[in-house]
Amino acid sequence: MSFLHTTEFNVEFGDCDPAGIVFYPNFFRWMDAASRHFFTAAGVPPWREFEAREGILGTPLVDASAHFERPATYGETIAIDTSIVEWRGKSFVMRHVIRRGELKLAEGREVRVFARRHPDDPARIQAVEVPADIRKRVE
Amino acid sequence: MSFLHTTEFNVEFGDCDPAGIVFYPNFFRWMDAASRHFFTAAGVPPWREFEAREGILGTPLVDASAHFERPATYGETIAIDTSIVEWRGKSFVMRHVIRRGELKLAEGREVRVFARRHPDDPARIQAVEVPADIRKRVE
Amino acid sequence: MSFLHTTEFNVEFGDCDPAGIVFYPNFFRWMDAASRHFFTAAGVPPWREFEAREGILGTPLVDASAHFERPATYGETIAIDTSIVEWRGKSFVMRHVIRRGELKLAEGREVRVFARRHPDDPARIQAVEVPADIRKRVE
Amino acid sequence: MSFLHTTEFNVEFGDCDPAGIVFYPNFFRWMDAASRHFFTAAGVPPWREFEAREGILGTPLVDASAHFERPATYGETIAIDTSIVEWRGKSFVMRHVIRRGELKLAEGREVRVFARRHPDDPARIQAVEVPADIRKRVE
Repeated sequence: MSFLHTTEFNVEFGDCDPAGIVFYPNFFRWMDAASRHFFTAAGVPPWREFEAREGILGTPLVDASAHFERPATYGETIAIDTSIVEWRGKSFVMRHVIRRGELKLAEGREVRVFARRHPDDPARIQAVEVPADIRKRVE
Repeated sequence: MSFLHTTEFNVEFGDCDPAGIVFYPNFFRWMDAASRHFFTAAGVPPWREFEAREGILGTPLVDASAHFERPATYGETIAIDTSIVEWRGKSFVMRHVIRRGELKLAEGREVRVFARRHPDDPARIQAVEVPADIRKRVE
Repeated sequence: MSFLHTTEFNVEFGDCDPAGIVFYPNFFRWMDAASRHFFTAAGVPPWREFEAREGILGTPLVDASAHFERPATYGETIAIDTSIVEWRGKSFVMRHVIRRGELKLAEGREVRVFARRHPDDPARIQAVEVPADIRKRVE
Repeated sequence: MSFLHTTEFNVEFGDCDPAGIVFYPNFFRWMDAASRHFFTAAGVPPWREFEAREGILGTPLVDASAHFERPATYGETIAIDTSIVEWRGKSFVMRHVIRRGELKLAEGREVRVFARRHPDDPARIQAVEVPADIRKRVE
């Protein structure tokens, strides 16, 4: 069993669209935030410290997906349970279960890599091996 | 072959994150916008007119996914080629190819339903059959 | 002295821009959310209940402004102290002090009205007198 | 008369809130984008090239304000007319007139500085004199 971390989010008026429900890209915004809180809760320092130390600037996405079961609206608090469910060489898979209390609303997956700026071109980025000390913290 | 529509977006400074590349949920924001432009280009009126007429308030998501191949950054213009690749009873699948010029950056899929407010509870929504006149316009 | 309410926000990676600091429109997003939490904390029900009851659909903005003194970045928690500092017929002025711990980062003001859909044209909105029961709760 | 540049934006479904109108922080997002397009149209290269060359990482905000006269909704195209109306040592004032066709919707002002990373602490930023070659281009 991987490390599991839960992050809570308040659904705000501005997160909702004219149908009165959460505009779905916000669920990805919250999953991305939940991913960072997951690493922070495991003791991993902010990416900007990593960038200064090892050139790692974050964990960009290779794949992202979500299945939506029930809508959410403003005034509600949602929780996201985040874990890593698979390690693949340079990439890894995060699973996010989104719920309101015990009621599941959605489930998402993110496939991420650790990346640094490309040594020959700072406008490009490059995947690197998962740093062993980070993997040890969250496995 | 389905109707195909291309929408262009400017990538802005505020769309990018501290790594200097597009914060990935924005690709879903643009895919959602590309979906609406797709229907508009096919002659479908705004959802608010549909809501007044038939109670349909939009096309909420059942599933959304994207595979990211190359990053984008501010100052660039991206194009999204949108089509419907599958019809399934009450849902349908939209495909979005995201490119910068000829260079493919990402590909996404959205599974959507046509929805109306639940007759017993306006806070809930309910899938309805794809309206025949809309389907005819975009097939 | 008006009712005062404090709302906390986590600054996320995706809230920051390529300069590594909060993309400033997010401060307005947080002020808008702080305004809603202010009313909720005072016992005012969600706007959608008001809309069903009195046609009031929220408190759209007439003016918004902010003075930024210090930047914030991801991994930080910020607090917004919200109060109403002036009542003017149909509008009122909310003051938001944004701080990280005791350190002030920014200060904003929002001039808002209570609005309902225009009776002749649901696409338009119309200011109404501040409802007396709401004013009593937050004064 | 300063250089004046007009940028157009499509108002999308996801830019609007449950009241069916633009969620106001998006107007600041568009003003920020309009500011960058203003500089780009005047021939100023992207900030990332400036950062490599002169350490300048953008034009962070000191003050931002807007007066909202009429709402906008999805399906509409808005135009922002941007100019610089005042130069003040290290800061300058941008004026943004937001309109839909000839109809004015809002007017905003941004007070900005040119900034670089603080030499003693890369997490902080520091205002610098307006670069003379940039000022010449937009005056």
